Amino acid sequence: MTAVCPTPHHEDEVVLLGHGAGGRLTAELLDTLVLPALDGPDGPLEDAALLPGHPDLVVSTDGFVVSPLFFPGGDIGSLAVHGTVNDLAMRGARPVALSVALIVEEGLPLSELRAVAASLGKAARDAGVPVIAGDTKVVGRGAADRIFITTTGVGQRRLGLRPSVALARPGDAVLLSGPVGLHGTTVLSTREGLGFDSDIASDSRPLHELVAALAPLGGQIHTLRDPTRGGLAAALNEIARASSVAVEIEERAVPVPGAVAAACDLLGLDPLIVANEGCLVAFVDAAAADEALTALRSRPEGAQAARIGEVLPHGARGRVTLRTLVGARRVLDMPLGEQLPRIC
Amino acid sequence: MTAVCPTPHHEDEVVLLGHGAGGRLTAELLDTLVLPALDGPDGPLEDAALLPGHPDLVVSTDGFVVSPLFFPGGDIGSLAVHGTVNDLAMRGARPVALSVALIVEEGLPLSELRAVAASLGKAARDAGVPVIAGDTKVVGRGAADRIFITTTGVGQRRLGLRPSVALARPGDAVLLSGPVGLHGTTVLSTREGLGFDSDIASDSRPLHELVAALAPLGGQIHTLRDPTRGGLAAALNEIARASSVAVEIEERAVPVPGAVAAACDLLGLDPLIVANEGCLVAFVDAAAADEALTALRSRPEGAQAARIGEVLPHGARGRVTLRTLVGARRVLDMPLGEQLPRIC
Repeated sequence: MTAVCPTPHHEDEVVLLGHGAGGRLTAELLDTLVLPALDGPDGPLEDAALLPGHPDLVVSTDGFVVSPLFFPGGDIGSLAVHGTVNDLAMRGARPVALSVALIVEEGLPLSELRAVAASLGKAARDAGVPVIAGDTKVVGRGAADRIFITTTGVGQRRLGLRPSVALARPGDAVLLSGPVGLHGTTVLSTREGLGFDSDIASDSRPLHELVAALAPLGGQIHTLRDPTRGGLAAALNEIARASSVAVEIEERAVPVPGAVAAACDLLGLDPLIVANEGCLVAFVDAAAADEALTALRSRPEGAQAARIGEVLPHGARGRVTLRTLVGARRVLDMPLGEQLPRIC
Repeated sequence: MTAVCPTPHHEDEVVLLGHGAGGRLTAELLDTLVLPALDGPDGPLEDAALLPGHPDLVVSTDGFVVSPLFFPGGDIGSLAVHGTVNDLAMRGARPVALSVALIVEEGLPLSELRAVAASLGKAARDAGVPVIAGDTKVVGRGAADRIFITTTGVGQRRLGLRPSVALARPGDAVLLSGPVGLHGTTVLSTREGLGFDSDIASDSRPLHELVAALAPLGGQIHTLRDPTRGGLAAALNEIARASSVAVEIEERAVPVPGAVAAACDLLGLDPLIVANEGCLVAFVDAAAADEALTALRSRPEGAQAARIGEVLPHGARGRVTLRTLVGARRVLDMPLGEQLPRIC
């Protein structure tokens, strides 16, 4: 065999930052290029995939490229653990094991690598999940930006919990476990030196115990999703589309911290599209909504849980609408996605 | 066993390219910094780790940063599949599922991304393993070099096969499934434009079927290792150390293709420290050596399998020696590791 290096057809057909931002461009890249090549699922993309032959086990992987490496409330090490633990949790699983692959730029101070590794290790211990496999690669100066981390997790699904992005149903209550916008605005504010970082901190934290609190409700928990890249807007749109339902959210019911609102005003961002790393949306049978809300609020990380909307009995399938503060109704679209690179 | 080296605390101590090259510097970085932080195993580092609570399942992860992306015999996509499939195979496992995380530089031509994804998908199909989970991140121009891929694999161990880097025993025969040095010299020659790439191609290929051919020998297969970064020298030293045995290799018995020898001469490299991606070393009970050799040779990828040495009944534990072509005996040391960056 000889090396085949393809020539691009058009100069302008290149990867854009927005392709990685979790919005419409990301979906397009996955749907038209990556998934066909890899024989991806015909069905919806879940936060974690079932392991063939082992229906109780799920697998999830995530690359972390956040910049800066350290920010109020966390760093790339703790984020890499929480992100993957949470993706497993969204399938109703407790984390069984993690693998960690580091790509490090030559010249990174060992003290920073040590700090990141220590934070990653502590986050894993705190979440009760062992790091069982790892890899470290080093590339030359300028070939990477300091450090990238890819974590992969294997999780074991809790008895009775079988949530899926495709299982939301008309009538479901939509619950949100905590305030939105903290992670994205914190990272952006730290990176750009905007000064908000004294008022806010990332919500980065593990959510598997919060999911465990929902376990007694079993099959009444239809869908769980953590609104990371693309924020609450992307998560809700993914659920509406995968479940083919119409979702309606009460804007006033969505908790947005004052500092997040202020930062978003300054940055021209909608808090609903800003990444979170420590909250989840749950679509639950309306009959179990109060009990689910109580269960969420029983945990510190769910203390501010709120019921923010519902799945409409009728309505345009795949669409998310927002009832605004003034009572109007507008479509809450899938974000295009170019606004917040390297947020996780 | 743990490498003893002083913990650095100076401001100017930074990550070096050699920290990622699979030799002594890599071992040092792992032993002194990464593994303590992550509560790594007290025992030896295996190619794949057992999944807690599921002793038939193993997990392995690897980051791929090879440059150039395309080279004779493969590309970063196929390599990412083969590398992880092979790490699983070295624990006696067939691959059950892969996850793939891409980190892509803004501006990468979509045609190149498409070619890499297509090659990755084809390699996975050819190996019979589904890609069940994935992630794509994009970073700005200059923040990564084109594309990095991290693959994680879950494997199911074949009945009776329980090889471990720590299970080599005095008297074992040392088998090598194919010629050494092809992958590393091919990548280096392509990258540096040395012109050898018309004569040689990477040996990148999956080895799980070759391991399946050994399965009937069960517990007589003590250790399997694919000599990737750091080459045959690193693999043998890792085995000698983890198993606390003395290994002796016959230099004349190690197949080194002529083009590899020529390229290594030019580059000032020892073929025994050059990375491979399509061969394995097997430490097997001497009584089963002939049968194992026959089994290896029954497969195309093992057609050139050879018996290259033995574990000495006595001798310095943890040491690898080489009987040279002229009959002298020299220590085959763990490579320091700075010579071949970004070879995989």
